Amino acid sequence: MTLADQAFLARLQKQIPLLRHMGIDQLSYQSAGLLISAALAPNVNDKGTGFGGSLATLATIGGWSLVTRLLEDQQLDCEVMIRDSQLTFLAPVTAAFSAWAALPAPEAVAGFLQRLRQHGQARLALQVRVQQQGEDKLTMQGNYVARLR
Amino acid sequence: MTLADQAFLARLQKQIPLLRHMGIDQLSYQSAGLLISAALAPNVNDKGTGFGGSLATLATIGGWSLVTRLLEDQQLDCEVMIRDSQLTFLAPVTAAFSAWAALPAPEAVAGFLQRLRQHGQARLALQVRVQQQGEDKLTMQGNYVARLR
Repeated sequence: MTLADQAFLARLQKQIPLLRHMGIDQLSYQSAGLLISAALAPNVNDKGTGFGGSLATLATIGGWSLVTRLLEDQQLDCEVMIRDSQLTFLAPVTAAFSAWAALPAPEAVAGFLQRLRQHGQARLALQVRVQQQGEDKLTMQGNYVARLR
Repeated sequence: MTLADQAFLARLQKQIPLLRHMGIDQLSYQSAGLLISAALAPNVNDKGTGFGGSLATLATIGGWSLVTRLLEDQQLDCEVMIRDSQLTFLAPVTAAFSAWAALPAPEAVAGFLQRLRQHGQARLALQVRVQQQGEDKLTMQGNYVARLR
């Protein structure tokens, strides 16, 4: 992890206590998106596979983190909130897993930043995938709202 | 809480470690649905309000618990999984909160049980609301699948 990624993960876990209990061991903000990874053991369900709540939580915070990092790059001081999400659970998770929040196309990002600067608030639609060894286990379509402070 | 509700909550928290870290203090299975409640402090986000991942998790386990208790009432030994969900975040949670999973209409429940007995697998659509002092903060429409063991 870069120092910036380490500091961001530490901040997440300081501010959001639930994230201290999920065995999150990696966060990587890249030009194409944001990856956040967790161990299986703290996130099992009654069947010994990944708990749906844990998968939903990792996807939700993955998307939130991508929007937040993007805005920090632009030195925009914002509150970021999830507005709605659609989750499809594809297959059981049986090992360590990651959420990958993909940065939308450049024109979508530019439009989002422009609306935010103009109106003080804007919405960004994200696609997040929870994967295990490159295989999709959950897909999430989420809408996040940013508001200038 | 009834002894059955206490035992069920203890089982949830034994099998699903994440649920030990959410300050869940009540579970009540009733004829009209299932209620599960949590304290705010272990579930805050960076803004000091309810973390979206915690709200999604409480709604997900609320629906799962309702289906599981319903099947146990029928002495059907099943695996229960969430298949998909749609979440709408309505307003910030600022105090203790609950998820209420409503039992569907009797004909929907009867159809679900009949398909399960006939085909060994069936799907049930549930509406779950996360509320704070009676006010809706999140609505979830979720599809759960039960499979006879």
